[in-house]
Amino acid sequence: MLRLALSITLISSAFAAAPALMPLPVTLRPATGKLTLDATFKAALVSAPDARLDAAIGRFVVRLSRQTGIPMLGLKDATPKLRVACAAAGNDYPTLGEDESYTLDVTSDGALLKAPTRAGALHGLETFGQLVTLAQDGFEVPAVHIEDNPRFPWRGLMLDSARHWMPLEVVKRNLDAMAAVKLNVFHWHLSEDQGFRVESKRFPKLQQEGSDGLFYTQDEISGVVAYARDRGIRVVPEFDIPGHTTAWLVGYPELGTIPGPYEIGRKWGVYENALDPSREETYAFLDAFFEEMTALFPDPYFHIGGDEVVARQWNASARVQAFAKQNNLKDAHAIQAYFNQRVQKLLQKRGKILIGWDEVLHPDLPRDIVVQSWRGQKSLAEAATQGYRGILSWGYYLDHLSPAAFHYGVDPMSGDADKLAPEEKSRILGGEMCMWSEYTTAEMVDSRIWPRAAAIAERLWSPAATRDVDSMYARMESVSRLLEWTGVQHRANYAPMLERMMGGRPAEPLRVLADAVEGLGLGPRARAGKYTSLTPMNRLADAARPESESVRAMETAAAKVAADPKGSPAEAALLRREFARWAANDARFRELAAESGPGGTPLAELQPLSRDLAALGNAGLKLLDALEKGQTPAAAFVAEQTKEITRMERPAAEVNLAAIRPVKVLLKGGKK
Amino acid sequence: MLRLALSITLISSAFAAAPALMPLPVTLRPATGKLTLDATFKAALVSAPDARLDAAIGRFVVRLSRQTGIPMLGLKDATPKLRVACAAAGNDYPTLGEDESYTLDVTSDGALLKAPTRAGALHGLETFGQLVTLAQDGFEVPAVHIEDNPRFPWRGLMLDSARHWMPLEVVKRNLDAMAAVKLNVFHWHLSEDQGFRVESKRFPKLQQEGSDGLFYTQDEISGVVAYARDRGIRVVPEFDIPGHTTAWLVGYPELGTIPGPYEIGRKWGVYENALDPSREETYAFLDAFFEEMTALFPDPYFHIGGDEVVARQWNASARVQAFAKQNNLKDAHAIQAYFNQRVQKLLQKRGKILIGWDEVLHPDLPRDIVVQSWRGQKSLAEAATQGYRGILSWGYYLDHLSPAAFHYGVDPMSGDADKLAPEEKSRILGGEMCMWSEYTTAEMVDSRIWPRAAAIAERLWSPAATRDVDSMYARMESVSRLLEWTGVQHRANYAPMLERMMGGRPAEPLRVLADAVEGLGLGPRARAGKYTSLTPMNRLADAARPESESVRAMETAAAKVAADPKGSPAEAALLRREFARWAANDARFRELAAESGPGGTPLAELQPLSRDLAALGNAGLKLLDALEKGQTPAAAFVAEQTKEITRMERPAAEVNLAAIRPVKVLLKGGKK
Repeated sequence: MLRLALSITLISSAFAAAPALMPLPVTLRPATGKLTLDATFKAALVSAPDARLDAAIGRFVVRLSRQTGIPMLGLKDATPKLRVACAAAGNDYPTLGEDESYTLDVTSDGALLKAPTRAGALHGLETFGQLVTLAQDGFEVPAVHIEDNPRFPWRGLMLDSARHWMPLEVVKRNLDAMAAVKLNVFHWHLSEDQGFRVESKRFPKLQQEGSDGLFYTQDEISGVVAYARDRGIRVVPEFDIPGHTTAWLVGYPELGTIPGPYEIGRKWGVYENALDPSREETYAFLDAFFEEMTALFPDPYFHIGGDEVVARQWNASARVQAFAKQNNLKDAHAIQAYFNQRVQKLLQKRGKILIGWDEVLHPDLPRDIVVQSWRGQKSLAEAATQGYRGILSWGYYLDHLSPAAFHYGVDPMSGDADKLAPEEKSRILGGEMCMWSEYTTAEMVDSRIWPRAAAIAERLWSPAATRDVDSMYARMESVSRLLEWTGVQHRANYAPMLERMMGGRPAEPLRVLADAVEGLGLGPRARAGKYTSLTPMNRLADAARPESESVRAMETAAAKVAADPKGSPAEAALLRREFARWAANDARFRELAAESGPGGTPLAELQPLSRDLAALGNAGLKLLDALEKGQTPAAAFVAEQTKEITRMERPAAEVNLAAIRPVKVLLKGGKK
Repeated sequence: MLRLALSITLISSAFAAAPALMPLPVTLRPATGKLTLDATFKAALVSAPDARLDAAIGRFVVRLSRQTGIPMLGLKDATPKLRVACAAAGNDYPTLGEDESYTLDVTSDGALLKAPTRAGALHGLETFGQLVTLAQDGFEVPAVHIEDNPRFPWRGLMLDSARHWMPLEVVKRNLDAMAAVKLNVFHWHLSEDQGFRVESKRFPKLQQEGSDGLFYTQDEISGVVAYARDRGIRVVPEFDIPGHTTAWLVGYPELGTIPGPYEIGRKWGVYENALDPSREETYAFLDAFFEEMTALFPDPYFHIGGDEVVARQWNASARVQAFAKQNNLKDAHAIQAYFNQRVQKLLQKRGKILIGWDEVLHPDLPRDIVVQSWRGQKSLAEAATQGYRGILSWGYYLDHLSPAAFHYGVDPMSGDADKLAPEEKSRILGGEMCMWSEYTTAEMVDSRIWPRAAAIAERLWSPAATRDVDSMYARMESVSRLLEWTGVQHRANYAPMLERMMGGRPAEPLRVLADAVEGLGLGPRARAGKYTSLTPMNRLADAARPESESVRAMETAAAKVAADPKGSPAEAALLRREFARWAANDARFRELAAESGPGGTPLAELQPLSRDLAALGNAGLKLLDALEKGQTPAAAFVAEQTKEITRMERPAAEVNLAAIRPVKVLLKGGKK
């Protein structure tokens, strides 16, 4: 613990420009000197030949070259500056619980990365990449000794490719970014009421009738599995049954509890449709289906969803009810447990371990299944108590667009897990963040995942004591920029989305507004009740970030200025500049909205927000004036502003006006 | 002519939001009504089945969906809103001179695109995409009748993948952008002193020894050819011989005039190395080489470069001199002509037509070869006079980073071509812009090509009378944003390159400076004399744009304000805002530079520029004040500013301070 706290301090004090390490390594000892990066830079495997690791090192150098702008051509006469020694390649396919540790020593002469397995070596490369810092006339890596290994063996990201289609390149670039922050499980949600996304050769109507033509071919699936494997990432497929299956039933209505016909779901929310658990044909279908799909995915874990099964169709079906009575199944939950047992046996005979959401938890299921908790830490603890292994997803729902600090504060071992016995605790394998895609399209999904996923990745990798929120944000913001070199589009998609709202004209006043707001997450958007899979996602709510970096900087500055108005000139200057920008922006925004034509365009609904932003800017300037003069703002002014801010706290146009926060800090005299 | 001028006027007046059409079509008649785009949008081929065109229509709808943010899933029960009727597929592979015309009729009920060939249909789709405009709550296409066809049959972009390596995805995304502005030839410069970039199975040491491992496999080449073909683009490969061949000679020194050994070229500039024209083995090698390479590239035109052959090695070689004497070749030019004749016969026997740079022009070569003029319009006219077909590249060198207006003003039929007889004129096939890559890496190349390439594309497609520069700029700036949906990275690479210079911190003050400068082109950078292929390209000069959009807007505003100070309040406000931004920026810039550490970092060399920018901002504000008060600026002030501006006109840190221009306009009282 002490050692770790020391690490954080050392990072920020020992290096001129602090490297943005995320996740923070277990042990980091700065040393003297620095390794300069230039066009002679080369990395080489110095242990037993390993073509796959060689290729990974090659890709790493290409990315390092992009990251620095330094050509690194692997010149023949250059000595390798980064040597990688891997004791054994480890498993051909990444394996839950394998040794992922590594050590990294950087000196002025070169760097040595040592790892017992390929997985550890891959992680060490990413750490080396994050250590690269801007220097006089170039880039360098500070001398350092690092020892590192993960806290949890299961560190995942779930992506929903079923509700909104996620093209192959979205998946691949996110795998690259996952590897960059040492995540090691890609949980791929592949079927839903709104789409069945994998080619089945055995049951081709699944994709032909259930996908609008948007599905991955088997070759593409195998390509993704290999791509992930090469980056140390396991791929766990999810085919959600018996609920969430409307898209299956379009082509195969005979699998459904009711006769159909079925149509691909267009609305969001929970559907009543469910597979018929009472017919042997259902299990025969699943048997053949699993035979095909388990061969596509080498991972031993196979996710069957199992969440949110609505009882109504089963309760209303005479056939299902007769079946339940015959089998002594007292309710829908018992029926689902029966169904899961059957499914588990089908998977088991193919060497697969069942994993499902909370709802699959039932004492009749064998103890080797894994429970993924979306409901809360309580169900995770319950599972562990009952002898089941589990992973936490509650608290890691990226689609809620919560601040990174919230996710960072959720620990798989906290809450109900805290009271577990050591053996029970050992059953908690880690966590998975969830990127559900009702309100996220392919173009914006990266910005819903990154950079916040990096904070969760740190929670799952670094020691539990790593929890300094300010340090996390500072590093996350740098890592966010670094992640761009992996190809992920979380920052790149912002300007085009804003400019689209402007009909291709420069969008600066819109950007000023967009920087000051934050998009609403799943809950309030679902409550708006107007969305289907056919709704355009091209408004400010879709372009806006989950968390505003610039507003956060202002909040921090405001707290300093409020605490010490005379002693924080840089912070005061920052606030004055930004407040002035907000105040001046509305006039330009109105001009643009007017030019866009009468009444309509996406800017129309934003005019009240823009006006409020200007008001906040003016209020902020007045508060700054008062503070700098050592005056207390007039009570009437404070009352009026407090009232206004309360009004502005209601979301408008499905965004929150984040700009409220720094003004509120000043108004309350420094209390955030 | 009249009809065209009318078109331009109609475009800007008849539509609420003018569609950014580029190239402008030959005939455009606005009609009444508009076609609304929503999730039911579908496009369909209504003529004879054509899988390739079907696929192109499918890709087009996917892009339209990205462009608008509207999901377009091809709903089964929806009626196609865009119907495509293609009289005949045309040639399997795009062919020089084929009919590329189309007509497009848009009404409130739907659109009909008619074309005699697949090529025309592809162009018409792009026009439809450009017609899409922002509307009340969505997007629409204004009702219109368009008749269109190209002025020149050869409209190309040359990309140099040899000097700096251009990965496959760079090539592909640029092909998509080329198709979007109706370019139809991709001239691929594949070998150079600095690299041989194609896998040869017959002569593997070409890529093994001559490419630093950076080359396209034959499968990748075939993939690019198919990718281009599907977008209506021919691929003309260039293997530059007998000069520019150092990279060939590393693996095959016996081909060289001098014995070697050779190393891959790292410096830029013209090398003396050349193939030995006196040995039969050279021609035997080329014969076998062409056998392999002509099979990879289906286009009948095969580019052999032929430029910049340095006479020195040939003159100094006793063997070459004896050979020349024996064959009655009086000088190096005659030797090269002999070499070209031999090469031409090797190509001819494989059904290929030789194309080369100016230098290949020689009366001994048959009249079917094509001359690409880089030296000037004079050599193009000479070629035409002598009966050769030619294309113009002089004036279209993108790597010179000239303003779009300059390129736009160069017409293949102007200059010396203007005096040609009609039959001679008919030999001028069109033009090709050249993207040489000495000072351009893969990450910045898109920004060196786009959007300026769109202006040249218009020059080569639209009628000669289309030459309103202001209209061109207005449309080019919109098209630039539209092009982002093709995947091209010309705008996306800007922020990451700037943030890299900041060590991952927010870069706004740097962006303000970067927006106000323009990168220097090949000439001055070459004269700096410090660049090799191993030099990092990560400075402001590399991130800065060839032409500043915001400065251009200020110049236009300044001209209006100077001409009518009281009558241009919006323009005056724009100038005041931008000048104030410049004036205030230097303090923040200095803070950032100081934070970056002592002395170094990429910001250090920019401090004088930042100071100058602030001075220009302050001068601009003073001039505005004077103008608005109806005063004449004091003579001493004008003299001082003029002197300062003269000083600032010298490039610094390899950029031009574009910000000078609007201030100069105000200073000169409106004369640009």
